[in-house]
Amino acid sequence: MSPPRRLLSEFIATGLLLTTVIGSGIMAERLAGGNDAIALLANTLATMGGLYILIEVFGPISGAHMNPAVSAVMATRGELPWKLLPGYLVVQLAGAACGAWLAHAMFDMSILQFSDKPRHGGGRWLAEAVATAGLLLVVLRAPSSRVAAMVAAYIGAAYWFTSSTSFANPAAAFGRMFSDSFAGIAPSDVPGFVIAESIGAAIGVGIHKLLGPEQKI
Amino acid sequence: MSPPRRLLSEFIATGLLLTTVIGSGIMAERLAGGNDAIALLANTLATMGGLYILIEVFGPISGAHMNPAVSAVMATRGELPWKLLPGYLVVQLAGAACGAWLAHAMFDMSILQFSDKPRHGGGRWLAEAVATAGLLLVVLRAPSSRVAAMVAAYIGAAYWFTSSTSFANPAAAFGRMFSDSFAGIAPSDVPGFVIAESIGAAIGVGIHKLLGPEQKI
Amino acid sequence: MSPPRRLLSEFIATGLLLTTVIGSGIMAERLAGGNDAIALLANTLATMGGLYILIEVFGPISGAHMNPAVSAVMATRGELPWKLLPGYLVVQLAGAACGAWLAHAMFDMSILQFSDKPRHGGGRWLAEAVATAGLLLVVLRAPSSRVAAMVAAYIGAAYWFTSSTSFANPAAAFGRMFSDSFAGIAPSDVPGFVIAESIGAAIGVGIHKLLGPEQKI
Amino acid sequence: MSPPRRLLSEFIATGLLLTTVIGSGIMAERLAGGNDAIALLANTLATMGGLYILIEVFGPISGAHMNPAVSAVMATRGELPWKLLPGYLVVQLAGAACGAWLAHAMFDMSILQFSDKPRHGGGRWLAEAVATAGLLLVVLRAPSSRVAAMVAAYIGAAYWFTSSTSFANPAAAFGRMFSDSFAGIAPSDVPGFVIAESIGAAIGVGIHKLLGPEQKI
Repeated sequence: MSPPRRLLSEFIATGLLLTTVIGSGIMAERLAGGNDAIALLANTLATMGGLYILIEVFGPISGAHMNPAVSAVMATRGELPWKLLPGYLVVQLAGAACGAWLAHAMFDMSILQFSDKPRHGGGRWLAEAVATAGLLLVVLRAPSSRVAAMVAAYIGAAYWFTSSTSFANPAAAFGRMFSDSFAGIAPSDVPGFVIAESIGAAIGVGIHKLLGPEQKI
Repeated sequence: MSPPRRLLSEFIATGLLLTTVIGSGIMAERLAGGNDAIALLANTLATMGGLYILIEVFGPISGAHMNPAVSAVMATRGELPWKLLPGYLVVQLAGAACGAWLAHAMFDMSILQFSDKPRHGGGRWLAEAVATAGLLLVVLRAPSSRVAAMVAAYIGAAYWFTSSTSFANPAAAFGRMFSDSFAGIAPSDVPGFVIAESIGAAIGVGIHKLLGPEQKI
Repeated sequence: MSPPRRLLSEFIATGLLLTTVIGSGIMAERLAGGNDAIALLANTLATMGGLYILIEVFGPISGAHMNPAVSAVMATRGELPWKLLPGYLVVQLAGAACGAWLAHAMFDMSILQFSDKPRHGGGRWLAEAVATAGLLLVVLRAPSSRVAAMVAAYIGAAYWFTSSTSFANPAAAFGRMFSDSFAGIAPSDVPGFVIAESIGAAIGVGIHKLLGPEQKI
Repeated sequence: MSPPRRLLSEFIATGLLLTTVIGSGIMAERLAGGNDAIALLANTLATMGGLYILIEVFGPISGAHMNPAVSAVMATRGELPWKLLPGYLVVQLAGAACGAWLAHAMFDMSILQFSDKPRHGGGRWLAEAVATAGLLLVVLRAPSSRVAAMVAAYIGAAYWFTSSTSFANPAAAFGRMFSDSFAGIAPSDVPGFVIAESIGAAIGVGIHKLLGPEQKI
């Protein structure tokens, strides 16, 4: 695929991922009558469905990383040309913001807003590191024919087994700060998440190497 | 397949799709005790299961479009003979109405009724355009062996990430207006949805072309 | 496979199916605090998981019909020897009762009991006919590699889109009458369900023939 | 794979399984507002997603048993060298405890704690035997390409159709005793569960043999 098509693909995929995460959070919170478990269940299922089809649809074009941590790891492994990495990061972040704004437009909310939901502290940072390490293990070891289903299943589980609801993605953290809704994160808490995710990604790659050669099918 | 069999297939498939959407909405609303998030979760899961098996069962016969927007796009691509398109649209609309009526009969409700649920406004119209654009992207780019699972996953997510609960289908909008229940739409709001869906379908086709050749397997 | 192994397989499979349906209904009702939508959601997911693995595990041995209506149709199609049909029906009914009793034993309930839950009337009988017709369409037209997932998805949807919660199976109706719990049915209402299911099965076979040759893969 | 890599794989897999089971239980209980059915639904979905990806990721390295009963059966069948069995059991138990502790750390809870949730009695012991027998049937008869999905679907169903929420795994019972949370079990009740699970595993192997040769694909 030509670089412009890859960048377009990564922009749209990351945008729709954030639209899915944030939009379903808004809908879930509006309908759930204050029961956050029901809201997170709906948010989880929508995110799983979205991830599955986005990876299937955009994977053959751009890899459907939708995640700067994944793109950086792919560059170090030679699976993404280094010269494309900056473009990937830019369109992922831009797509994430646009995805949040599209969700707001669909729900008749102010387009530009910022979250004031605090998400920080040792437990949550550890959770983001664990979540991102696990995501990298899945991405690096999944057979390519199953990677979409596996990433969806993993993130669906990680929404619940981590205390941070598993962003596991610096672009997701960036995009969610633009939404004062269920899925949001206060802008001042984004750096902590990004650092934790970066450390987690490195740990995931390290464990992957310790486990020996993957068996891609 | 012979044209009569294709039309019969499209009629039954669209009918059962609407029976599933409307019937599960009735059951969910009756049982959910006023918690619309739980009702929509049940409605979502039933719709996903229904879409998955309807596309698997009826896809090999008629394509299982169950959707005038999809049929129209398939005609422009040469995947549906133009001369079959009018018949497809007629049986999809007729099937949608009959599907609503079958749901009412099963739940001992008046067969003929009309929804008075308002569904209009800029946010919802944008949502229908986005939902239909996404659906077309999935339909046009999914490997044929996975299209049933992907459409089901996509619509399941879109029920939540759009403010309109993602009809994404003029035949669904038509059939749902005949049901004064959870899944209904006031007849006067149907044209707005159909226009938004048509624009969204065209946008989906446009993005599909920008992304370059699909990789059907 | 030898006939004794096929009968053992059909006995265990039908038994575990009823254990799953009834046991998960008991657990769901105990935990749901009176919200029947949440209870039916849990009952649905457990049934889907159970059906999926039972068909995968026991299908290669006995077909995993777990359903007299399916076995009868298979006999008329030459896919089950006529001389095995009586044995299949006997072990399916026996298995269904034993499955109910196993569920009661696990939940420390009286083993022998009868439901007093009324399930009758025109809407519910129509629902059972529709549910069984749809099940036969799925069973007869599913590619064999996907039949387990498709039956699970179909029954999961039909639990919600029918007013009867889709028994679609005379052995299930028989076994459920032995349980005075969420999934039960009053014994006097079983004959109505069985008649409706039988008519539905015939309709399903008829529609299958109208649709032309299946495309098994 | 070399033995150290297999042991590392089994340690991480079992650890992450317990992190998933216990962490999602903590999150679910915190959010569910006292509705245990919603909490168990979330716990179920997280466990299913976790099992699916853990078996896919770690299966090619170590088999991803994550379960002493499964490892012991595999040793008797010659699919695990006897000399590796003690190592497997040690890392499974160690991993289970570490997984519980990791969950506590992510949720800012005391790392070292013990459950006081009673889980005993005839019904629950029967349930554990049934659950483990079923698990062994699934593990021994699943086509290898589907074993991950089948185990996930089975355990998801068994969380609901058994009165014990289906631990079906001595390492899970061991790890859960270290957590005073939704998924916990009082230490004094662990031996009863382990005995019941061992008996169930033997029954599962016996039924498997009665059913004749599996048809692995």
